[in-house]
Parts: sequence; structure tokens; C-alpha cells
Amino acid sequence: MPTTDRLMVLNGPNLNLLGQREPGVYGGDTLATIEALCHDRARAHGLAVDFHQSNHEGELVELVHAAGARCRGIVVNAGAYTHTSVALLDALRAVRLPVVEVHLSNVFQRESFRHHSYIAPVALGVISGFGKDGYAFAIDALAARTREERNT
Amino acid sequence: MPTTDRLMVLNGPNLNLLGQREPGVYGGDTLATIEALCHDRARAHGLAVDFHQSNHEGELVELVHAAGARCRGIVVNAGAYTHTSVALLDALRAVRLPVVEVHLSNVFQRESFRHHSYIAPVALGVISGFGKDGYAFAIDALAARTREERNT
Amino acid sequence: MPTTDRLMVLNGPNLNLLGQREPGVYGGDTLATIEALCHDRARAHGLAVDFHQSNHEGELVELVHAAGARCRGIVVNAGAYTHTSVALLDALRAVRLPVVEVHLSNVFQRESFRHHSYIAPVALGVISGFGKDGYAFAIDALAARTREERNT
Amino acid sequence: MPTTDRLMVLNGPNLNLLGQREPGVYGGDTLATIEALCHDRARAHGLAVDFHQSNHEGELVELVHAAGARCRGIVVNAGAYTHTSVALLDALRAVRLPVVEVHLSNVFQRESFRHHSYIAPVALGVISGFGKDGYAFAIDALAARTREERNT
Amino acid sequence: MPTTDRLMVLNGPNLNLLGQREPGVYGGDTLATIEALCHDRARAHGLAVDFHQSNHEGELVELVHAAGARCRGIVVNAGAYTHTSVALLDALRAVRLPVVEVHLSNVFQRESFRHHSYIAPVALGVISGFGKDGYAFAIDALAARTREERNT
Amino acid sequence: MPTTDRLMVLNGPNLNLLGQREPGVYGGDTLATIEALCHDRARAHGLAVDFHQSNHEGELVELVHAAGARCRGIVVNAGAYTHTSVALLDALRAVRLPVVEVHLSNVFQRESFRHHSYIAPVALGVISGFGKDGYAFAIDALAARTREERNT
Amino acid sequence: MPTTDRLMVLNGPNLNLLGQREPGVYGGDTLATIEALCHDRARAHGLAVDFHQSNHEGELVELVHAAGARCRGIVVNAGAYTHTSVALLDALRAVRLPVVEVHLSNVFQRESFRHHSYIAPVALGVISGFGKDGYAFAIDALAARTREERNT
Amino acid sequence: MPTTDRLMVLNGPNLNLLGQREPGVYGGDTLATIEALCHDRARAHGLAVDFHQSNHEGELVELVHAAGARCRGIVVNAGAYTHTSVALLDALRAVRLPVVEVHLSNVFQRESFRHHSYIAPVALGVISGFGKDGYAFAIDALAARTREERNT
Amino acid sequence: MPTTDRLMVLNGPNLNLLGQREPGVYGGDTLATIEALCHDRARAHGLAVDFHQSNHEGELVELVHAAGARCRGIVVNAGAYTHTSVALLDALRAVRLPVVEVHLSNVFQRESFRHHSYIAPVALGVISGFGKDGYAFAIDALAARTREERNT
Amino acid sequence: MPTTDRLMVLNGPNLNLLGQREPGVYGGDTLATIEALCHDRARAHGLAVDFHQSNHEGELVELVHAAGARCRGIVVNAGAYTHTSVALLDALRAVRLPVVEVHLSNVFQRESFRHHSYIAPVALGVISGFGKDGYAFAIDALAARTREERNT
Amino acid sequence: MPTTDRLMVLNGPNLNLLGQREPGVYGGDTLATIEALCHDRARAHGLAVDFHQSNHEGELVELVHAAGARCRGIVVNAGAYTHTSVALLDALRAVRLPVVEVHLSNVFQRESFRHHSYIAPVALGVISGFGKDGYAFAIDALAARTREERNT
Amino acid sequence: MPTTDRLMVLNGPNLNLLGQREPGVYGGDTLATIEALCHDRARAHGLAVDFHQSNHEGELVELVHAAGARCRGIVVNAGAYTHTSVALLDALRAVRLPVVEVHLSNVFQRESFRHHSYIAPVALGVISGFGKDGYAFAIDALAARTREERNT
Repeated sequence: MPTTDRLMVLNGPNLNLLGQREPGVYGGDTLATIEALCHDRARAHGLAVDFHQSNHEGELVELVHAAGARCRGIVVNAGAYTHTSVALLDALRAVRLPVVEVHLSNVFQRESFRHHSYIAPVALGVISGFGKDGYAFAIDALAARTREERNT
Repeated sequence: MPTTDRLMVLNGPNLNLLGQREPGVYGGDTLATIEALCHDRARAHGLAVDFHQSNHEGELVELVHAAGARCRGIVVNAGAYTHTSVALLDALRAVRLPVVEVHLSNVFQRESFRHHSYIAPVALGVISGFGKDGYAFAIDALAARTREERNT
Repeated sequence: MPTTDRLMVLNGPNLNLLGQREPGVYGGDTLATIEALCHDRARAHGLAVDFHQSNHEGELVELVHAAGARCRGIVVNAGAYTHTSVALLDALRAVRLPVVEVHLSNVFQRESFRHHSYIAPVALGVISGFGKDGYAFAIDALAARTREERNT
Repeated sequence: MPTTDRLMVLNGPNLNLLGQREPGVYGGDTLATIEALCHDRARAHGLAVDFHQSNHEGELVELVHAAGARCRGIVVNAGAYTHTSVALLDALRAVRLPVVEVHLSNVFQRESFRHHSYIAPVALGVISGFGKDGYAFAIDALAARTREERNT
Repeated sequence: MPTTDRLMVLNGPNLNLLGQREPGVYGGDTLATIEALCHDRARAHGLAVDFHQSNHEGELVELVHAAGARCRGIVVNAGAYTHTSVALLDALRAVRLPVVEVHLSNVFQRESFRHHSYIAPVALGVISGFGKDGYAFAIDALAARTREERNT
Repeated sequence: MPTTDRLMVLNGPNLNLLGQREPGVYGGDTLATIEALCHDRARAHGLAVDFHQSNHEGELVELVHAAGARCRGIVVNAGAYTHTSVALLDALRAVRLPVVEVHLSNVFQRESFRHHSYIAPVALGVISGFGKDGYAFAIDALAARTREERNT
Repeated sequence: MPTTDRLMVLNGPNLNLLGQREPGVYGGDTLATIEALCHDRARAHGLAVDFHQSNHEGELVELVHAAGARCRGIVVNAGAYTHTSVALLDALRAVRLPVVEVHLSNVFQRESFRHHSYIAPVALGVISGFGKDGYAFAIDALAARTREERNT
Repeated sequence: MPTTDRLMVLNGPNLNLLGQREPGVYGGDTLATIEALCHDRARAHGLAVDFHQSNHEGELVELVHAAGARCRGIVVNAGAYTHTSVALLDALRAVRLPVVEVHLSNVFQRESFRHHSYIAPVALGVISGFGKDGYAFAIDALAARTREERNT
Repeated sequence: MPTTDRLMVLNGPNLNLLGQREPGVYGGDTLATIEALCHDRARAHGLAVDFHQSNHEGELVELVHAAGARCRGIVVNAGAYTHTSVALLDALRAVRLPVVEVHLSNVFQRESFRHHSYIAPVALGVISGFGKDGYAFAIDALAARTREERNT
Repeated sequence: MPTTDRLMVLNGPNLNLLGQREPGVYGGDTLATIEALCHDRARAHGLAVDFHQSNHEGELVELVHAAGARCRGIVVNAGAYTHTSVALLDALRAVRLPVVEVHLSNVFQRESFRHHSYIAPVALGVISGFGKDGYAFAIDALAARTREERNT
Repeated sequence: MPTTDRLMVLNGPNLNLLGQREPGVYGGDTLATIEALCHDRARAHGLAVDFHQSNHEGELVELVHAAGARCRGIVVNAGAYTHTSVALLDALRAVRLPVVEVHLSNVFQRESFRHHSYIAPVALGVISGFGKDGYAFAIDALAARTREERNT
Repeated sequence: MPTTDRLMVLNGPNLNLLGQREPGVYGGDTLATIEALCHDRARAHGLAVDFHQSNHEGELVELVHAAGARCRGIVVNAGAYTHTSVALLDALRAVRLPVVEVHLSNVFQRESFRHHSYIAPVALGVISGFGKDGYAFAIDALAARTREERNT
């Protein structure tokens, strides 16, 4: 029973630097602030959160596998791997969980190679440019989806 | 004072058919439902909403101009014009209001010509694939922005 | 009953100039001649025709919506909008009527940007290069389709 | 005199399989049905038809040459060679007869390499997606053209 | 006689905002200033000016048609539609009047999609980057052309 | 009964030269050696083999048609036509038999136009670079498939 | 002596999920089944197998290095890294062992970014679409190669 | 004082042939006529003109350098070098003078490689298609700019 | 001995129409005239000529094979197949004879798809645009080459 | 009279190094040998030759101008400028003389940027890969052309 | 103080094989030789060096983060990740240290996918093709930069 | 003997402006400073330097030829011609001397057309972004190379 009540929140490369790294682009919040926000928001929906950050593509792939075994949905901010990782796409497709793709900055205002996402085609939806609020919204969306599934 | 308390919500071509048009892609909500949701959500922030739909690129351009004169921000679901309208981009850039781009469906799961948005580079952010909830989130984001501006 | 007996014939931008505009490319017939031909041809199949021309993309979109409410099929010569209008594609897909795409001239002998049609993928078929006879054929094709549907 | 009264109808590779091959795409008619339809339709215009099918690009080229010597026009459904054969384009341009390009299915709903035709630029017009009716229309168009030429 | 003495000056989307919209890019003149300048300049050549602005592609198409009936030439600053409107190209080609394409800013210093003009191939010439002086020059050029035609 | 026990092995242009033609690329085996190997390998599975080579695209198309009438699967090394023949793709799709695509050399080490195959999307699988062993493997794969089908 | 008798079989990201992940695409076998098959097949050739799976590009690179020190050839199913990893290409080129590239599914029936392999140009050959049988064939091919080398 | 009163007018390759070379494209004026026009026009603004033509890219680069030392602005018709010379772009950028790009013919009606200009991004503006009048206008524009600078 | 004294002259599709087909492009000579010229020119070098024309790609491939067995060089005007036939490239590469590519018209003045030749990379050289004189030159070049080879 | 009897032979950059520069690509002949051959060949046709080499694009342009004034045709081996010089194209088009493009090596066997020629579209024809014999042929072709013109 | 005196030297995938891997391309030096050289060279500038090699993209990202905390600059030879890693670009941009990109071989002589570097736009400069001397130069450049910063 | 002791240092267009031209991009050093540095650095290796700057592509080509006759290596900063000059590539390849390509600024941070170098494939290596220090390094590299050659 507890496993069905969890969401995974996955953060990709360089997000551990948040708050230090280019605050003009990514804002001043740290990853710890975002983690706290995610726990709070999920708790309000009666859900727990597994919150992870990794700079390793392979580790992110394995965290997705783990989510497949114990979570109800995935919030993913894959950072740079959004644009280069077919492995992550394959992992997300394999576990067949609902996925929400989040970006802190509006990727469409940046280099053109950031306009393409390997992940977006397997996501419920994408939210880009709203800082930490994007995570809160993503949790709301997955919580709603989880409720729907429980009711059907 | 009243003009500083308004947001515009702009809906592009074919959105008047909502609820009838390809419910598999766009869901079963009608535009009236979305309008009601927007008014409610804005009211909770102490804001009013100018809600419009038009199938005419030129009319949408003029609604953006009108927003420039009396609103604090714009929520725009430009539908098909997202992908083809430089005129709308120019209008949004001209009025220099904060803009949030919303799509009901996840455009990244559809034809490749829908992956490009002329509007995204002038938006605060983009939210795609969450049905009417995207509008609610967009209003929250603009309300937060409006509050920040008032406080500075 | 009467609504199920109608076809819409839609003509896009600049087709009001027919007969004056580049007769070397488009022939000497006027739009009035084509309208008369359409009424005659449809009548022979026991069908009525709503015949329209507009230079406005948004108006064409709305005429498609109207067709969705009262017609059994659409003949569309979208002129220049064939090559640029995603809004028209969305409208045609939304109303789910059988569509025949017609062009007076053979678009494949002209500039390469005229070789692409946003509309063709949602049409039953395309007929290009036969002047006003293309309209007659399109009406025949939709009449046959209408008969089939009535018989099943 | 009799030679001036003939049209050639040319069918390209795999069309001999018609009726068996992917009926969902090409319909259930056989090539024999189409041949009969062509003879009937031409006869109504006082014309005879040379009806051919070949899976060989070179044979189709030579049939075009033969048409140049004894026919007044060519209906061509070149099938796959539409998209790959410069030789056929050259043959059709060389004989300087009026040509109508026909496709049973709507090629614009299929793989993108089927959207390009080497033949279309030398055709009077193109008709795609109407099954065997496209042949009938093509014969009508060439008959009309033949009459015009005889009258001038 | 009076109709042969008129030029049309056409202004596309967002140009009604002139003076407010991005003065760094477009300068501080308003459209009223430009209209006055056009009347003055034309008058010096013994010509009258029909001066229009529209945010609607269809309306611009129809103004071109109107020019075809009563003017001797067209000055067109199509704004954003320069880069997206095949309909405007077709209208300008249809009326067969001399056309001068004007842009206030130097479009070649801006986004690459602004480097392509659908209109330029049917224009006498293009003038880009000289603010309102471009209109004056365009009127001079059309006046000269009009004189030549009257003299031949 | 006998027809259900046959496979066709099809060899495309220039493969009759095998053993003479660029042995550094294609190895020293002749086509006769490969034919013997195919008969042996098929016999071990209780199958017969129709082994053909042709330099003619049309003949290869017709051999595919023949296979459709009397074989259970097709091994195809279409040589150069792999990269240029839509007609062969259509033939293979039409007969709806299991197909294995074989290449003697590793095509991915050669000119980039050899990296694209029109046939691969309708094949069970592709095997490239293993000389005549690729044929043996292909026969094994089709034999296994045939057994499965017989058992269901 | 023992080191010269080993092959390495390398499996890339997400292959640990085999049997669970999209069985419609990858079949129902697990990686354990494939490992057993590889050991059996190699043993029949008098060879041992080092069988590995990793989701980490860097680990796969290092396994290739290890193979360079103790193996006679490499069977590699690099999964998603096939399409994105220049590092793996460099590792395989550096160790100068014979390599066979294997894919369970026919990659040419999937997204176009899966049609390109960084690894194929350094492989003896590629086998794609035959499920676990591809591994067996790859081991046969490397065993044959190993025998040849020992004999020369 | 005298140096601040000069403009340079630079003419690129083949412009020495003017009047002889393709008068259908470039008109019948000779370069001497244009030079006279430039001197007259500049004199009306109280300016002198350094008028040059060269077929040598390097010489044009050096004339730009010279202009940097003694002129207030540059009118440049770089002819073919417009489309191929990065060196000229660098020279113009280096001297930081106001530049107007002029073309006698409307380059947008000619081969597509003439639609790109290396120079346009460093020019105040571009004027194309008005024959020698383009030079006069360019001098006016630079004179106006020069006056502005003197007044500030 | 006699086989070493022969050249093959190969003519591709539609060249049998020479003299009738687009004389503005290909000139008024017939293929018989060219054949006579080739025999004469070769005889002057003490060589015989095998002169062939075929509209069939496969036949041309087989004629190249035949040349490999009995000729010292090949003059090839592959017509349309120049631009589309990988099979012909493979045949020419396989027989390892010196090849000269000839075109009657200057292919670089025609459609862009005629600017690419699959054959040119395996030819000694290419001669395009000189009508039948190109054949004469090609025979001279191969005769010189043949003499060199005999002398070494 | 004597001026009408001259041809110009133009050699582009680096051709002065002939005989030293990459003899594997360009052969062992020096430019002096080629010059002698050209004089001889022209003399046999009763023509004189102006033979030039320059490493300067501008000088080559001016030599073309000079040819326009005193020659009957131009043989041009523009070397590297073939692929980069629009100025040379313009010069050749301006003088309206018959032009033959010559290359010593077969440019189609070299880097892909050498497959494009700016000059070819204004040449009678192109001859590539035959070393100095290409010059001789070019002179023959221009001599024949000159004779034709004199006779008409 | 000691932390401000360090540089990081980062080596990417496969560089641990140096000396063994393709010595024709990368030379015969081992990574140990390069490490010694770096220590010596840095010591001469009064700097220490953190020297690392990793085959893991994520580890390289984290080493960049570590450098951000304790070093004055980064020398990076990212090997294959140069061409594929957006994550590394983001890490380097985040730590805002001066970066020098080094390659042992001249990447511009190799496959075209090695001509693009994700890292170069955030580097002071790039040095490619000089073997281990490139590292020495990079250390000199960073030492100079470090001195400048200390002096300002 | 003295000729074997020289290096050539070649500077392309606009480098004569150094110190004046965009100091933000190119730094404040003049070409005279760089020349002095080159003489000093070469002298330390017992070498002399021929130092040249030219704005003429043809002159640079001829300086390369001269270097071929009297120098041991070439340092080339071809400026804008790096990106456009095939002639310079051919010259450098022809003289077969070791070449080092230098750029003052980091070209990879500038317009994308500056990311391609025609020269790099024939250079030992490339050094970009280190101002005048790049010249010093290039001389070191060529001196080392020269010593190696003398010792073998």
C-alpha cells in the first residue's frame, strides 16, 4: 500500500548547483528549497515523494527503473539530458508511469539545441519557465491522475 | 486602478469548438468551462479576466493591443497560430506584458510542425498537455508576477 | 433533413479575382461560372451547395465550422492558405466531414512552396490542374460518398 | 485516322496485384475492372484506349514512346516510379502529349517520399485519392483536350 | 482620370502601434506622421494617396484588390505578413501594379525568419532600414514609374 | 502442401558477378556457393528454396509477386535497389510474407547513401556484413517463423 | 591462454528490464535467458563469455577496455547509446577487437533517430530484429573469426 | 574639417561594365553617369564623394579602411562580393562608419544565392532594385545621419 | 586478341528518341549518326565499338558486365539513370574498366537533380554539353588510355 | 579582323604550380606545356590564343572583361574560384561569349564542395578529368562554334 | 590561499588508454607522461594541478563542480563528450572559471561530427592537434589569466 | 642552408587594422607587436621569420607559393579567408609544408559561418582564442617539427 502512494521527483545534471549556477537564468532557489516544496505539496495530496538528483545519465535511468517498481508517477527535470538522452526516453517509456517534464527556465528562449526534448513525447505534459512552481504544478497534475486511476 | 487588476485570456482558432473537436486530443471540456475556471481562479487572486476567443489572426493581434492598454498580463493559447503567426509574436513583444503560453494537449506528441512556437521566446513560460489546468496555473503565475511588480 | 443534403464549396484568397487574375495560370472562368457549375452539378445528385469565397483565414475557418453543423462534405480550394494555414487543417479535422481539395492550376508546376499542402492529409483526395472541372469532379466524389453513407 | 483517336492508360509496378494488395489503402477493385471502366469511358468520348501495366521502368518508358507515335494523350499511374523515375519524366517530356497523373490512394496521407512526383511537373494535372474514378476523370480531361485540339 | 492619379500605401500588422512599439527597433515616429509625409510627398508629384493599415491578412489582400481597381502603384510595408503570407503575394501578382516593399527597420539585422520575403519577388525593389524615409523614396520611385508609363 | 514449404531467396543487381566483383568488399564466394548453402540450410529445416538473381528491378518485383503465390517467406539481398527502389518496398508490403534483408558487406561502412534501406521497414530484421552466413541465418529465422505459424 | 578463449557480450541501458519493457517491441525473453543462451552457444565453440549489462555509458566504455585486455571479440547491444555515444565508438575502435552489433528489435521500423548507429562503422556486421537469436548468431560469427585468426 | 565632409561610394566587381552588361537586368546607365549623380547629390548636402570601383576583393577591403580614415559614411554596392565576402563584412564592421547597401537590380528576383548578404547586418539599411536612384537615396540617408551626428 | 580491341558505348533511356526529343536541348542528331561517328572514330584508333542503347536499367547493368568480359573501356551516357542508378555505379565499379561519362546537353544548366551523378566518381572524367562531339572525345580518351596500358 | 580570331584561355589560382602540385591529382604537365598545346591547337583552327594565369579573383574578372573586347570565346579553368566566385560568373555572363569550363582532375571524385560550379550554368559545356587534353577539346569546341557564327 | 593556486586538468573517455589507442592518431605518449608534464609546467608558474581522467560524463560534471570550489581554471580534453555533452557545457558555464579546451589530435581532420564542440563557446580558446604540448600551452594561458586577475 | 631556417607568418584581411578594429574581440595589440613577438620567438629557436599581411586572397596564395620555395613551415591567420577560400586551401596543400592555423579570437564564440575552416584539414593543428600568444605557440610547434625533420 505505501508504495502506491509515492511519486518520484528526478533532477538531472548540475541541478545540485542550484542557487549558485547562473541565477539570472535559473533563479536563486536551491535544490533543498525545491525538495521541501515537493514534500509539502505531495503531503497535501496524501502522497510521499522520493526526491533525487544525479549528474549521471545511467543513475537517472536506474532511478526511473526504481520508480517503476514503487511509485505512481514521475516528475522529471532532466536538465541537459533532456536534449541528449535516448536512454532516459527508453527508461521512461519502459516503466509506463505518468511523467511530467519540468524546466526551471523557459528553454525556448535559449540555444536552439535546447528546444528539442527526447522526453516530451512520453510525458503527459511539459511545463517550462516557472522556476520551482513548475514542480508544484507537476505534483498536482500527477496527484490528480493518481486519484483518477484509483477511482476507476 | 481597475485596469491594473485585469488579465487577458486569449484563445485562438478552433477553440470555440472545444468539447466537440477531437475529444481524444483536447478532452471534453468546453470553452465555457474554461472561461468559468479562469474567472474563478483570477477572482481568488483579486484579479478580473478579459476572456476572448477568435479564429482571426488579425483580431488576436488587436486583442493583444487592447491588453497592452488595460491588462497586467496575457494568457495565450494561440492554437494553430502558435506555429505560423509572426504577427502575434510582434504584437506580444510590442505590448511588453508578461505572457504565459498554454496548450491543452501536449504539442510535442503531435506533428513536428507543432513543436515550434513563434510565441514561446517572448513568454515567461510554456505549459502544454494539462488541459484546462494549464489555464489555472497560468493565471497563478501571472498573479504572482503582478504582485511582485506591485511590491517593487 | 435538408441539412443532410448540402455540400459546402469553399474558395480561398484572391479567387474572387478569377477571370482577371493571371488567366495564363488560372484560365478565363470567373467565380460566378464556377458557382453556377457547382449548383448544377450538385442538383444532378440531389444536393444543394453552400458556395463561399473569403480572403480571410479566420472566415474560412468559421465557414468550415458552419459546414460541420449543416453539410455532408466540403470542397475546398484554399488558394494560398493551402500552403500556410494550420488553422484550416485543424478546422477540417475537427468537423470530421469528407473533404476534397481542389486547385485550378497544377500546383506542382509552380514555386516549390506550393507543393506542400497542410490540407491534403485530411482530404479524401486532391485534384489539381483541371480548372473548374476539378470542382465538378469533387462534387461527384462527395455525392458518391454521401450516398454510400446513407446506404450503410 | 484511328491512331489519332487513342489514349494510352499506363499502370506502373505492383498494380497487377490490385484487389489483393493492401485493400485498406488501394480499395478492392482489380486492374481488370479499371481497364473495363477505361474502355467504356473512352468509348463514350469516341476514343479507344491502349491499356497497359508493367513492373519494368524501361518498359513503361517504351510504352510512353509508343504512345508518342499513336496516341492523343496519356493517363499515367506510375505507382512507385512516380517518386523515383527521372527516365519516365524524360520520356513524357519527350513525346509532348498531354498527360494526366492518377493515383488510387491519396499519396499525401502516406510516407513523405510519396509526396514528391517527378511526373507532376509535365502533367496537365494530378488526381489522387479517388480510386478508379480518378481514371474516368482523367479520360474525360484528355478527351476534352483532344476535342479542343481538333477544333483549333 | 482621378483614379489614375492615386497610389496606395499599405501597412501591415502592429504598425498602428508605431511610436509605442519597440522604439529602439522602429524609431519614434507614429503612423500618423508617416501618413502625413506620404500625402505631402505624393502631392509634390501630383498624386493622391490611399493610406491604410490593417492587422488582418484578408483585409490587406482586399486592399490590394481595391488598389488594382483605382491606383497606379502600391507601397507595401506588410510587417510580419511579409514573411508568412502567400495570399498577399498572390494578390500583388494578380493586380499587376508596380509595387515597392518598405521596411522601417533593417530586417537583415533581426531573426533569420525575417530575412525571407514572399513579396520581394513581385516588387520593383525593396528598401529596408531607413524609417519613414523609405516611404518617401518609395513614392518617388512609383511616381517616376507612373510618369514613364504616361509618357509611353 | 508443397507451396507452403518453400522460401524464396532473391538477389539483386550485380550479385551474379560475385567472387569477381570487389572481393575486398564482398568476399570470394560465388553466387553458386551461396545458392548451394541456401538449399542445404533450407533442407535441414524441411524447406525448399527458390533461388533467383536479377539485375532488373521489375523482374525482382515480379519474383516477389511469385513468392506471394507459392512461398512462406523471402530472403532478400536487393543490392543497389535496397537504396533506390520504392517498387520493391511496395511489392514486399503487398505480398505480406515475412522478409529478411541480407547484405554481404556491412553497408554502414560504405557511402552514406547505402545507409538507407527502403526495404528494412517491412522486414522482420536486417543482417549486414557477414557474407554468405547472413543467408544461412536468414533461412533459419524464416524457418523458425514458419514453424511458429504452423503451430498456431 | 584462457584469455584468448573469451568473448565479451555487452548490453546497454534498460536491457536489465527485458521481459518487462514493451514486450510488443522487445519480446518476452529476460536478460537471464539471453545470458544462458550466450554461455551455451559459446561453449559449443569452446569459448567462454563475459556477460555484462550496464546503464552507464562510462561503465560500458570501461567494459570495452577490459575486453581489450582479455577477450577475442565483443558482441554489443548498446541500446540507446548506439545512437548517441561517440565515447563507445572510440572505445571499440581503440581496442581493435572484432565487434558484432546486435539489436533485439528491428531499429529501422522505429523513430528515425534510431536508424543511425555510431558503432556500426567499426563493427564486422550488424544484426537487428531477431530477438535473442541475434546474440547466438553474433557469437557464431566471432567464433568463426577467432578460429580463422588462430589458423593464420 | 575637409575629411569630415566626405562620403565614400564603393562599387564592386563588374560594375565597370555598366551600360554594356545585361541592360535588361542592370539598366542602361554607365558608372560615369552614376558617379556624376553621386557628386551632384552629395554637393547638395555640402558633402564630397570619393567614388571607386574595383574588381578586387582586397582592394575593396582597403578602400573601406581608407574610408575609415577620411570619410563620414560608405555607400556600398559590392556586387557579387555581397554574397561571398566575409572580408568585406569584417572591414565594414572594423571602421564603424554608417553604411548603406545598394543594389541596382532587385536581388530577390534572381538566383537564391543572391538573397543572402554578408554586408546587410552591418548596414543602416539596404536598397535594392531602383537602379541609380538607390545611390541618390543612400547619399541622402548618410547626409541626414552625418547632420544628426554633427548636431549631437 | 580481338576482345582487347573493343570499346563499349552505352546509351541510356530515351536516347533512342534522339533527333525527335526536345531538339532545343539535345540537338538534331539521331542516335544512328552518333553510332556512325563512334565507329569511325574508334576505327581511326584501331579499335572496334560495341554500341548499345537501352531503356532498361537492368539491361544497362548487364551490358556493363558484358563489357567487363570483352572490352577495354566504356563510354557511358546513362541519361536519366545517371542521377538515380546505384546499380549502374556498382556495375561500373565491379568491372574495373576505364569509364568516360558523356552528356549531350550541359546538365548543369538544367534541374538541380541533374547536377548529381552516381557514375562520375568511378569515371576517368566527365564531358557534358558538347553534343555528339563528346562521344568522339571520350573514344579518344579511352584509346589513349588503352595505348598506355598496352605499353606498360 | 585579328581580334575576331582570338580565344582566351584563363587559368585560376595555383595553376602556376602545375607539375609540382600534387602530381597524383593533377598529372605531371606544367602550365607551359599546356600553353604550348593551346597555341598549337588554336593555330590549327586559324585562331590565336591569349593565355593567362592568375591567382587573383579580380584579375580573372578583368581578363574576362578583356576577352569580351577582343576574343571570340573563353576556355576557363578557374581552379578553386570555380566553387566560390560569383564575381567570375557575373563577368562571364556579362561578356556574352561562348565559354568552355575545363578541369584537369575529375572534380566529382574529390571533396563535395568541388562538385558545385558557379560557372557551369553559363558554359556551353564542361570537361573534367582529362588533364591537358581537356584544353585541346575546349579549343576545338570554341573553334567549331566560331566557324558556325561566321557562317551565319 | 592554497585553493586559489590550483588548476584542474580534466581528461575524458578513453584517454586512460593513451599510448595504446590508435597511436597514429593520438601519438605514443601515455596519460602519465601528460600528467607529469602538467605538474611540471604548473609548478613553473607557482601553481598546483588536480589531474583527473574519467570515462563517465557524470563524473566529469562533478569534477567541474569540484574545480568550481577549489581551482582557478580548467584545462579540459573532454574527448568524445566534447561533441555530445550538453551536461558538461552546463557545468563549465555554471562554475564560471576560465576554461581552455585541448585536443591531442586535429579534430578538423576527422569525422564531421567531431568538428562541433559543445564546450568551445564557453572556453577562452581551443587548441587542437599538438599532442601533449597543447596541455602545456593551456596551463600557460590559464596561469597568465590567473596572474592578471590577481593583479586587478 | 639559410632558406631551410625560415618560417613564414601569414596574416589575412583586416589584420593590418589590429589594435583599432574591435578591441573587445581582437585585443589591443597591433600587428607590429605581433611581428616583433614572432621574430623574437623564432630567433630563440634559431629560425628567421618572413612576416606578411595582405588583404588580397591572390596575394596570400602567392605568399604560400613563396613559402613553398624558401620556408620550413607556415603560421597562418587567414582571417575572413579562413571561411571562404578554397584557393588558399589548395595553395597550402600544394606546397606540402607543415601549417599551423592561428586565430586571435575564439572563432567558436562568433557567427556560425566562422566555425568552418577550409584550412584546418591541411593544418598540423589549430589554436584559437589566445591573442598573440597563439602565434608564439605556433612558432614553437613548427620549430619542434623542423628539428624533428632535421634529425631524421
